[in-house]
Amino acid sequence: MNSARILDSLFEPKNIILIGAAHTEKKLGGILLNNLLRSKVRIYPVTPQYKVLMGIKAYPSVGEVRELFTASGALVDLAVIVRPAPEVPGILRELHPWTKTAVIVSAGFSETGQAKLQDEVKNIGKETGIRLVGPNCLGVFNAHQKLDALFLAREKLKRPKRGNVAVISQSGSVMACLFEAIRTSNTGVSKAVGYGNAIDIDESDFYDYLARDSHTGIVISYIESVGYGRKFIESARALSQEKTLIILKSGKSFSSQAAAFSHTGRLAGRYEVFSSVLRQFGIKEAVDFDDLVDSAKALSYQTPLNRGSGRRVCIVTNGGGSGVLAADECTKQMLDVTRVREEKVQKLREVFPPFYSLSNPIDLTSQVKDTDYSVVLETLKDDYDGFLIIALTTVAGITGALAGIIKDFRETTNKPLVLYTDSNSSTRSIKALFEKAGIPSYPSPERAARGLNALINK
Amino acid sequence: MNSARILDSLFEPKNIILIGAAHTEKKLGGILLNNLLRSKVRIYPVTPQYKVLMGIKAYPSVGEVRELFTASGALVDLAVIVRPAPEVPGILRELHPWTKTAVIVSAGFSETGQAKLQDEVKNIGKETGIRLVGPNCLGVFNAHQKLDALFLAREKLKRPKRGNVAVISQSGSVMACLFEAIRTSNTGVSKAVGYGNAIDIDESDFYDYLARDSHTGIVISYIESVGYGRKFIESARALSQEKTLIILKSGKSFSSQAAAFSHTGRLAGRYEVFSSVLRQFGIKEAVDFDDLVDSAKALSYQTPLNRGSGRRVCIVTNGGGSGVLAADECTKQMLDVTRVREEKVQKLREVFPPFYSLSNPIDLTSQVKDTDYSVVLETLKDDYDGFLIIALTTVAGITGALAGIIKDFRETTNKPLVLYTDSNSSTRSIKALFEKAGIPSYPSPERAARGLNALINK
Repeated sequence: MNSARILDSLFEPKNIILIGAAHTEKKLGGILLNNLLRSKVRIYPVTPQYKVLMGIKAYPSVGEVRELFTASGALVDLAVIVRPAPEVPGILRELHPWTKTAVIVSAGFSETGQAKLQDEVKNIGKETGIRLVGPNCLGVFNAHQKLDALFLAREKLKRPKRGNVAVISQSGSVMACLFEAIRTSNTGVSKAVGYGNAIDIDESDFYDYLARDSHTGIVISYIESVGYGRKFIESARALSQEKTLIILKSGKSFSSQAAAFSHTGRLAGRYEVFSSVLRQFGIKEAVDFDDLVDSAKALSYQTPLNRGSGRRVCIVTNGGGSGVLAADECTKQMLDVTRVREEKVQKLREVFPPFYSLSNPIDLTSQVKDTDYSVVLETLKDDYDGFLIIALTTVAGITGALAGIIKDFRETTNKPLVLYTDSNSSTRSIKALFEKAGIPSYPSPERAARGLNALINK
Repeated sequence: MNSARILDSLFEPKNIILIGAAHTEKKLGGILLNNLLRSKVRIYPVTPQYKVLMGIKAYPSVGEVRELFTASGALVDLAVIVRPAPEVPGILRELHPWTKTAVIVSAGFSETGQAKLQDEVKNIGKETGIRLVGPNCLGVFNAHQKLDALFLAREKLKRPKRGNVAVISQSGSVMACLFEAIRTSNTGVSKAVGYGNAIDIDESDFYDYLARDSHTGIVISYIESVGYGRKFIESARALSQEKTLIILKSGKSFSSQAAAFSHTGRLAGRYEVFSSVLRQFGIKEAVDFDDLVDSAKALSYQTPLNRGSGRRVCIVTNGGGSGVLAADECTKQMLDVTRVREEKVQKLREVFPPFYSLSNPIDLTSQVKDTDYSVVLETLKDDYDGFLIIALTTVAGITGALAGIIKDFRETTNKPLVLYTDSNSSTRSIKALFEKAGIPSYPSPERAARGLNALINK
């Protein structure tokens, strides 16, 4: 069976066996069961201790579930394993040949020096054909199917809303932090996986699958090391041609990880080599955690310009200083903060008070009215490729009506447009209005500039 | 009178005349009056329209107030002017010789092409001896005196708590955004000023004053251009020797501002020149808005190491990936993420489970207990110069007790120590506990690393 179909079993399982289920959320097996029960999928929890867990029938052993399936000839799509590491090889053998995929949540493998045990599990995967995620991993998540096979409680880690960003993370803790940052930045997630030690299914397999996933438009990928360099580059490149892939690579600075792209195919290697390979193949890289989240937000809200489009940006502000900070960062990102054409300056000068500054940034000052933004945008819509709007709500002239004005403009031009606004409590509702209208909002002028850059410098 | 004593009149006035007072917060003069009434200072609002404003006696003209003062021979410490620009010269002449300082909030001077009017005001200042802040400025603020002479309503812009960070901003909008960012990052402000066009009192005067201000430990300064280069450098350097000064310079990239440090003493100039001069004199520069706020937060919470101290940092985490991201940023900031000495690894190995990773970052994994952090810190306290703690609360083992543990450690060693934690709703109380214990918390691993850097790379 090819990887893409196998990943259907993983992300859209029709049934799930949970080995190591528990009755309480004080245990990982209980958290997982509680999360899994949110989906409409049939769950088979396995525990020797209880006959009923959280209101559904439990099975005393893997064998009892096997009997059900071998009798009917059906297969289990997904096994989730949370038993101690030394038990995992035996469990996998029991799951054969009636189980397609297994997520091994359990830790205690290579990451703690148990390389031999990890190799054994890897070999069993190859022998049996059960495709494996993990071990030592957070699990899988599919917002469009309500599949939640993550071992973190929903009270402890709220899930982001449904959206078009897929999160592929080697690290569970980084994935949790990404979930939180994505949620608070009002961005939505399609699918997510924390894949840990990656003894079988790895980032390349996920890239191949997501390239064809209709719910996913942007893939963000946190990577510590890459197993098979050539496969990784091929998959990342293919995905980048279909959708946006943004990679955040850690371990940038450890000489201990040094080992260039070698004949063995391992690309863990020196960060500089990794980074230059990405650049060479046109694969986007985030500089840090915030950059990853900010770029994903921009691309989730709006369609980026085609490669080779112009990069002239106009900054429209009601606070001079914030406009200059945004202009600095735009310039740093190689965007072109070119002056307003003299003809257009004259046109704007006719309708605006003399103290508005009409170069670029255009400063509407604290005397601004909502409709001023509309005048600027309509006048300059053909002169620029993207717009950065700064609307500081500490002055009286900025109201919720501005969101509607900007939305109308976006609908006629469809050019990239992002917002920076201050973060007063009164701003929250204005931000929400903007984001409902498809305008991503950022908490600093520089972050807004980097968000705009993600939409222009494809 | 020297500048320092003049600035006492500005920041700690005993009486204030408000010219252009209004009865409603729909007008700037009403917002200012409402804000000024929070202090215990005697206010003399001037308006021809009302006899009583917001419950206090109003005066129909500047002349009526002058009569009071010339009769008694007393002086007014501070005049706040919010009348239209063309009226300002006449008002200043009326304020002479019974007024020490004036904040000209009014806009409509050089920033809108009215250079002649600005020159006139400047000359009147020189002739009369009234020392001027502005024009075109946000105003002054002194948290320790409850002086609030800012023209933004408190509902629109909440004020930060009282603290030791002074905010000196050429731009009013940037100052408002800084206030908001400082407040939400739980940092406190001592004094603040938005000084606008700076025709008289400028950043250098504020630096001189703050160098001797007992309430101020850190000065953050947003600058667009500098009038007198030599004076600026001398004051900035002198302040940096007493306290921490961090400058955020905008207009980094505009060739239009090019003009190097010339014999005329103007340092507006090319950004590269400005930046290299700062470096040469050991004056700190922030790379962007967030960096300014994050550095100020670290320095507000803790005392930085002396120049020339070591820069070995230890990262203690319960999430592997986040630890590596922090380590990357520390290394980028030239901090030394040196490995734990073998002798200490052995010592820790005796008490910790085998799957804890004991290099650097030290990864206590999702199986962490609060007390593990204490064990690590106690064992390594003499091996490192600073610590970056990552405590992700999505796992069960992290509780509010951790704040107490870290606090106790800080009290015995006093070494720089910062926190990164995730931003779940459940984290808010833990963050608050940490910050009460003097540990600054940051919203991403990289920002925590930069916060730690501010405390070590002085």
